[in-house]
Amino acid sequence: MRGIVPRKIKGFRDLGPGLNGLKWQILNAASKVYRSYGFEHWDTPIPEYADCLGKYLPESDTVAEGIYSFQNPEKEPVLQADGKELRDEWDHVVMENQFVTLRYDLTAPLARLYAERLWLRHLKEPFQEGKTPYFRRYQFGPVFRYEAKLDPGRFREFWQSDFDSVGASDPASDAEACMVLADAMEAVGLKRGSYLVHVNNRKILKGFLGPLGGDGVGGVGGEDMEQAILRVIDKADKIGTAGIEEELGRGRLDQSGALIPGLQLSGDIIKPIMGFLEKFSGEGKRQDVLVNLDGMTEIGEVGREGINELHKIDQILTRLNFNEERVIFNPTLVRGMAYYTGPVFEVQSLQTYKDDKGRERRVGSICGGGRYDDLVKNLLGLKVPATGASIGVDRLAELLTLTNQVPGTLRGPVLVIMFDDQLMVEYQGIARELRDSGIDVEVYYGSQRGLKKQLAYADEKNSPIAVLLGEDEFKKGVVTVRDLRLGKEMAAEISDKAEWKKKVQFEVPRSELLEKIKQMK
Amino acid sequence: MRGIVPRKIKGFRDLGPGLNGLKWQILNAASKVYRSYGFEHWDTPIPEYADCLGKYLPESDTVAEGIYSFQNPEKEPVLQADGKELRDEWDHVVMENQFVTLRYDLTAPLARLYAERLWLRHLKEPFQEGKTPYFRRYQFGPVFRYEAKLDPGRFREFWQSDFDSVGASDPASDAEACMVLADAMEAVGLKRGSYLVHVNNRKILKGFLGPLGGDGVGGVGGEDMEQAILRVIDKADKIGTAGIEEELGRGRLDQSGALIPGLQLSGDIIKPIMGFLEKFSGEGKRQDVLVNLDGMTEIGEVGREGINELHKIDQILTRLNFNEERVIFNPTLVRGMAYYTGPVFEVQSLQTYKDDKGRERRVGSICGGGRYDDLVKNLLGLKVPATGASIGVDRLAELLTLTNQVPGTLRGPVLVIMFDDQLMVEYQGIARELRDSGIDVEVYYGSQRGLKKQLAYADEKNSPIAVLLGEDEFKKGVVTVRDLRLGKEMAAEISDKAEWKKKVQFEVPRSELLEKIKQMK
Repeated sequence: MRGIVPRKIKGFRDLGPGLNGLKWQILNAASKVYRSYGFEHWDTPIPEYADCLGKYLPESDTVAEGIYSFQNPEKEPVLQADGKELRDEWDHVVMENQFVTLRYDLTAPLARLYAERLWLRHLKEPFQEGKTPYFRRYQFGPVFRYEAKLDPGRFREFWQSDFDSVGASDPASDAEACMVLADAMEAVGLKRGSYLVHVNNRKILKGFLGPLGGDGVGGVGGEDMEQAILRVIDKADKIGTAGIEEELGRGRLDQSGALIPGLQLSGDIIKPIMGFLEKFSGEGKRQDVLVNLDGMTEIGEVGREGINELHKIDQILTRLNFNEERVIFNPTLVRGMAYYTGPVFEVQSLQTYKDDKGRERRVGSICGGGRYDDLVKNLLGLKVPATGASIGVDRLAELLTLTNQVPGTLRGPVLVIMFDDQLMVEYQGIARELRDSGIDVEVYYGSQRGLKKQLAYADEKNSPIAVLLGEDEFKKGVVTVRDLRLGKEMAAEISDKAEWKKKVQFEVPRSELLEKIKQMK
Repeated sequence: MRGIVPRKIKGFRDLGPGLNGLKWQILNAASKVYRSYGFEHWDTPIPEYADCLGKYLPESDTVAEGIYSFQNPEKEPVLQADGKELRDEWDHVVMENQFVTLRYDLTAPLARLYAERLWLRHLKEPFQEGKTPYFRRYQFGPVFRYEAKLDPGRFREFWQSDFDSVGASDPASDAEACMVLADAMEAVGLKRGSYLVHVNNRKILKGFLGPLGGDGVGGVGGEDMEQAILRVIDKADKIGTAGIEEELGRGRLDQSGALIPGLQLSGDIIKPIMGFLEKFSGEGKRQDVLVNLDGMTEIGEVGREGINELHKIDQILTRLNFNEERVIFNPTLVRGMAYYTGPVFEVQSLQTYKDDKGRERRVGSICGGGRYDDLVKNLLGLKVPATGASIGVDRLAELLTLTNQVPGTLRGPVLVIMFDDQLMVEYQGIARELRDSGIDVEVYYGSQRGLKKQLAYADEKNSPIAVLLGEDEFKKGVVTVRDLRLGKEMAAEISDKAEWKKKVQFEVPRSELLEKIKQMK
């Protein structure tokens, strides 16, 4: 017989006050930085029509792969590209339960939001390329990925914090995105030198791959092969240089012995790609990278454009003192999302931690972004330049926890201990008096009333102070106060229970309680 | 041919900076109040297994009704009530794509969270009634209801902000919930006297309905009929007293002429119910309501218990000066959720606004809550008392907007106007200097570079100041500053364009820009 077992869906999690508090510290600090650059706070729904979000996830070729998708319970008219309802041969409107997706990022919904507003305006006046609105927003919230394999620390629901400029074509807006990321990292508590913003331009890789096949058009075999090669290069962190070489060629066996098929490229093509990756493998100075790039001959017009954009980005970063301690150029950087068309960014944490087996580990990538000039085009046929980036809030919270950088511990409420039901109204009065003075205070209502239980509860919540009031004390007009913080410290030093109690617990007249607690906080 | 039209799912919406900013003001203010009572911030996933959330929505009898539900893409073992995998006749584990629900509130997931933690502990030690953990948390986030009919201002995704005490049986914890609600309403900006917390105890209605049928057990015909009657009474706001009387009896015709079936109760039963509703229809003093209730004879043991709990709640509220201006007793209050077992709360806004047809309207209910002692029992078979409430954040934001109580307007960033690409690095330098002094500032990167366009953009974002720098000014070492706020005020007063410009726009040496803008902010 099937039964109901209380459980979460695999890959999902509950967040307690520690990690959740940290998450909100990150969200608030990042939002403040975004606002300081003029981004405004918008929000979009969690479910969206699948066709409006498109399919851009790394390593996934169908809507279902990697995406939570279901059919809307409501039957609705199917639309044509012109917005009119589709009709069948008998002129009936075709109705369907359309596919709905839990958003997999915040960028595709932004493109939908922007395109929708433009589309609604278009019903009144025609589109005009180059006259599209300019729009800057930030947004944070959960996104959903149906990852078949769940590595430790990976979840199927996780939070992102994004900022984007839609309608901005100037490389200065890409340079700004790098600065926003660096500022945000420091605002959430990362020390300068403990993270690095990596910057590349996909146009450079495109320009480099283009001429390789010798056909002069799609180079190595058109857009699809180009994307396929970029996806392989993007795996560098996971599979290493040797793995890339194998996947560009005949394929390789993974850890389980399964064959990962290769792209079957010839050595003539693989060799220069590996040479390119080798050449730019180190983390050089921005100037050195630019000199190296300028010296490349077989890079095509697109590649040259990409290099010039990096020059402009460097100019601004250098002028504003965002030097190599914060932002570097890395021509091998790809970023997984298929929608990037130009500059791409990634923030890497340089910090290490020891995993549970004592191995030294890096958290790795904690933010990503880039320019995606075609995302709105895919929805409206109208090119709208756009750039932006995303902070992986959960990864960042994990990093701060793993590397012991959590800013301050949460302080719990003062706990009013429940001794005597008859005194409930008194307990409430005490709580109110303290609360009115801005002190967080909680009255205990749990069913287990033992003092030990209640003090354990106070400890769990990190309460600094407990207030005790029994009938005798009430008659005497006094209250007992226990300093829980001091108690913890003293517990190590004083073994004699009576002496310990004398130090950490004392009576005060009821009328002086507030003042006393104010002094202790 | 079907096409992709950029669009949202019906019943969902995008939130711009105005309404979204208001939403976050409410969330932050309410959270602060919750923390002041000792509630800690937790979060749970958005999708949950359908069987773990149960079905408690008002007026819905199946999982599908009112709920967004789909099958998990992952096949998983079906479990038995003891947690072991279910096996078929050939001893194979039964695998299924299990049903997943987008949470419809934050209370059912809390019960799942609590039950799951208890269940995992139970694998080590057996359950002990009365020894269950005590747990207080607050949570906010979106919830989802598939409402077939969408009234204006109703959405299928909306935000709730909840606080709950699990393991608390004392009516003092219910009294506290009322105080938290009242405090939260004032923290978000509602004036005292502009809202009212209504309190009832379902036990009173239960005790009253119980003896009515005369069978002494289920009274009017058992639990199901009791719930059905409560659901009808709950519709008072929508259908009025006459509608209730009809729905208790033979049914009624709705506005479209469709028959709403009645419960077919006899006059013997309907009459006392209508009498009860009549008797408590006014908003009397808490003391008067209690005297009235105390005087009722046909109320049974359960009803008496409910009245005694109201007495205890009144005692605390009165002692802490939460008088009838803030909290009243309303014995006709039901609240829709089927899981309530005792005290129920609802916050009503007393404010009115004019709708687009000029009609006077009330926003009505903006918060709801109550005691739900059986919610965990339904998952674990173990009774765990619990109480709490929920703020309808979107309703509240709507109320503040409709009644013009929005606290302050959002101030936009200083806008650095883009005149000349060659000066981009200068613009960036200006922005950085101001930003480093804590001023929000944005450089314009839009593709439409006309001054008019840029000033319109500044206006849209409510920017207080624009900074203008062209080649001539750059060579002279000056910057032009335009006071956009003053400009707006002056526009009404001064018709002469040149004179107006002289008042609101001036040159400053580049080196004095920061100081000047600090003075203006």
